[in-house]
Order: sequence, then structure tokens, then C-alpha cells
Amino acid sequence: MSEIITSKENPAVKHAARLLKSAKFRRQEEAFLAEGVRLCRDAAYSGVRILRMFYTEEALERYPKDVELLREKAERAFLLSQQLAGGLSATVTPQGIFCVCAMLDKTDCLDKMDASGQLLGLEDIQDPSNLGTVLRTAEALGIGGVILTRGCCDIYSPKVLRGSMGAVFRLPMALVETMPPAVNALEQKGFVTMAAVPDREAEPITQVLFSSPSIVLVGNEGNGLKPETIRACQRRVTIPMLGRAESLNASVAASLLMWEMMRASGEAAL
Amino acid sequence: MSEIITSKENPAVKHAARLLKSAKFRRQEEAFLAEGVRLCRDAAYSGVRILRMFYTEEALERYPKDVELLREKAERAFLLSQQLAGGLSATVTPQGIFCVCAMLDKTDCLDKMDASGQLLGLEDIQDPSNLGTVLRTAEALGIGGVILTRGCCDIYSPKVLRGSMGAVFRLPMALVETMPPAVNALEQKGFVTMAAVPDREAEPITQVLFSSPSIVLVGNEGNGLKPETIRACQRRVTIPMLGRAESLNASVAASLLMWEMMRASGEAAL
Repeated sequence: MSEIITSKENPAVKHAARLLKSAKFRRQEEAFLAEGVRLCRDAAYSGVRILRMFYTEEALERYPKDVELLREKAERAFLLSQQLAGGLSATVTPQGIFCVCAMLDKTDCLDKMDASGQLLGLEDIQDPSNLGTVLRTAEALGIGGVILTRGCCDIYSPKVLRGSMGAVFRLPMALVETMPPAVNALEQKGFVTMAAVPDREAEPITQVLFSSPSIVLVGNEGNGLKPETIRACQRRVTIPMLGRAESLNASVAASLLMWEMMRASGEAAL
Repeated sequence: MSEIITSKENPAVKHAARLLKSAKFRRQEEAFLAEGVRLCRDAAYSGVRILRMFYTEEALERYPKDVELLREKAERAFLLSQQLAGGLSATVTPQGIFCVCAMLDKTDCLDKMDASGQLLGLEDIQDPSNLGTVLRTAEALGIGGVILTRGCCDIYSPKVLRGSMGAVFRLPMALVETMPPAVNALEQKGFVTMAAVPDREAEPITQVLFSSPSIVLVGNEGNGLKPETIRACQRRVTIPMLGRAESLNASVAASLLMWEMMRASGEAAL
């Protein structure tokens, strides 16, 4: 049973469009918009609460099972025209399936992180494509969880959700105001805390003996980690480089760090 | 001495704007548009022939030395208004410096590749951000050269140039029609040829003993390497994965492969 929407002035459509565009509105509503069959299905299977679901006639024809599943999971479902669907889309060729989802509780959950695992810390990562890629890689490599500062771009932005391939729904994540208190708390729990820095004097990541549990912290694309965050960490590690480029892209650097961490940890069986 | 452009109908501006937007026009003219202080300077220092240079009054004030250098290197220089500069820009906040550059000769130069080095092969990579990131990483990690199929997106597109951080100007690259003949030619030269595949039966990249010279090939984002390219290679290698994600982003996968290749090769001293 779906309600039918014919006007772009419909409050549910306007609400969803605002969730698409404004990080502030997402925070205020504690909700976000997921787009596309795959991402919506990922949300549903990850136990994300689906408040509203929107779909087009065309989507129902192309993806009948997925629309059915999502209609069942959603508290309310709406049928809308292709044209209205365009207004909810961040892509060039919308599939015509959208879900308004309740944000997951990512705050204050350092305690929920795997106490024996390998974690990643991200300080003030600005680019949504970078953040999405890093989260996708973290999941692919089996990272136990990610700690992000509130200075990072919004994990519920369309680009991050899409780039992460749904990892946002599944990865344990904690949002913290600033990094140093989190680093200190993890150290108390027995984590080895490591700051990634572009400094040839730091320990090459290839020579670090990663013991579990540990965390590697990666900083902002332009400025790197804050001095106080570097000071809060027990060790400073770096990616040795051979070529001429000044540095690696932030998502590649984070990926190589995670790779070395997982490669070196006994569980990895790489 | 610069000519002053006041109209957007000026043929030099229209020509540059077409180079920005059309890969076909770039190929036809054998030229491309580089934007921004850093990229234009990289082009100049890399021996790229600068046919025309455009700058704004504001750019001259902010970057006097760079404008001076580029004016000297360029065959013709033009001063233009901020507004006209906006029309040549692929960025939100243009710096007001642009160079029309002659394409480098990247064809038919398998012979120019380091015969004792580690190479990367890219087949039909579609996303310009991925390609730019991969080229940047290749340079940062000291890869000897990159072989690309013509099915890859244009290396002179604004996104690839920017994402590569100028690596396009410096990395030895060869553009080939299809991969199998290039693979065969490299094998003849003594290269070990390896196809990267998402297949748990293939050799884990962490256990490969890379001998120099060698090449790893990476395929299209959606479809991977073509079957005939995989067959042309001597070995099949894969990135072992631990988490739940189906796969890694193409630029991250290529980065991890290059990293392992350089890490394992004796010269690396990682």
C-alpha cells in the first residue's frame, strides 16, 4: 500500500530533498536520504530504520523484489513520478528508489569498538569522495572500526554514502569532538596509538610491528593531523616514498596504512 | 608583453574553452588546457610546450613570479578579465592562470619504458578521478611507467590532470590500442606479466615474489580485465580481502598492487 505523490510541493518530498542537500538539516532531523537499489537494500539489511520510502513506477517494474522488501521495511511508502524522483537524486541517471533513514547512533560509542582490533582515526577529512573511499576500504580490509572527528565531512552526505558502498551502515564508527581525548581513552584501554605524518624521520610503516589492539590516525588533506593530536599519540609513523610526488592522495594514504596494519597483524592471514 | 582579451568571442579564448570541454577536440588539436599555478608550473618545468598562456590581473598580483615564468615559456600570452577566466575554469574558485599545452608524445613508446623497472598497465579505466589518483600514486611510489589502453578516459581531461598532480607530465606513459600485443611485447623483453583479478584462486599479491622487470595489469572499474588480456599474461594475482565488501575502489586496488610491487622489489628499500 503506497500513497501517491503528484506535486513537488508535497511535504514528504520537500523534506527528503532538504535531507539530500543540507548536512545541517540532516543533523537536526537525525535522518538522511539513501538513493539507489543497492544502497537502500544495504540500509535495510543493516538494520537501519527506514522512515519513508519513495519509488517510481519504472523502479517497481525493474526492481520488483527490492521495492517490495523496502516497502515492507518502511514505515510509509510513496509512489512518485520520474520527474519528482529527479528532484531527490544526486545522480545523473536516477534508479527511482529512495529511503529516508534514521541516523545510526555513532556518538559516544568508543566502548562499542572492538577492544582487540585494529582501528582507524580520521581527523577533519574534508572531501566526501575521499571519506567514502576510505570507509569502503576499511570495511574491505577488515578494520575493526573508525573514529572520526566532527570536523570530517558528513558521513550521511550522498557522496560519502555512495562512495562507501554502504560501509557507513556496517562499520563500527564513533564521532568525537576532538581527537586527543579519544586517543587518551584508547591508550588507557591498551591500544597502541600511532599518528601518520609526512616526515621521513618517523617510523616507516613497513617496519612497524603492529600489535593488537592499535589505531592509526590520519589527518586533513591539506594540513595533516593537528599538532596536539600528534602529541597525544605514542608513536609517529610514515609511508616511505620513492618517487617525486610530494604526497599521496588522502584516501590512498589511508588505504596503504590500513593495508600495512592488517597485513602485519597476525589475524590477517594475508 | 601580453595581448589583452576583452571579448568572450575572442578566438583564442574560444579555442581554449573547447580544449577544456572536448576530448575529441583535444585529440584533433593535439593540445590541452592546464589550469592553476601548480599544474601550469609543473607543465613548464616538465618540458611541456606551452602554446598559449592566459592570466588575470588578480593572478599577476598573487603569483607574480609564476606568471612571469609562464609568460616567458609561452609562445603567446594573454591578459583577460576574471569573468572570461571563469569560462576557462573547471574549478569553483579559479586562480586565473591557464596554459594551452601541446600533448606529449605518449604513443608507441613501449621502447622508452624502463626495461628493468616495474610497470603498471591500465585497461579501460573510465573514471577520471580514479585515473588521476592512480597516476599520482604511481609517481609517488616510483613506478617506472604506465601503459594505458585507448579505452581509458582521456589523460588530458581536467579531472585527470588535476588528480594526477602533474604526474601526467612526468610519468613515462604509453597509449596502446589493446593490451594483449603490449603484454606479448613486454614478455619478449623479459618482463613478468601479471593480471590482477578478483579471484580467490589467484596468487595472493602478498605472496608474489616480484622480480624485475615486471608489469601488473588492472582492468575496468565494472568489468575488470578482458579475458584475452588475462590469457595474455603469464600469471594471475589478486588482493586478499578480509572484510565484507565485495571489492575495493579501482584506484585503491591499483594503489595496493603498486605498493606491493614496489615493497617487494629489491630497489625499494622500504
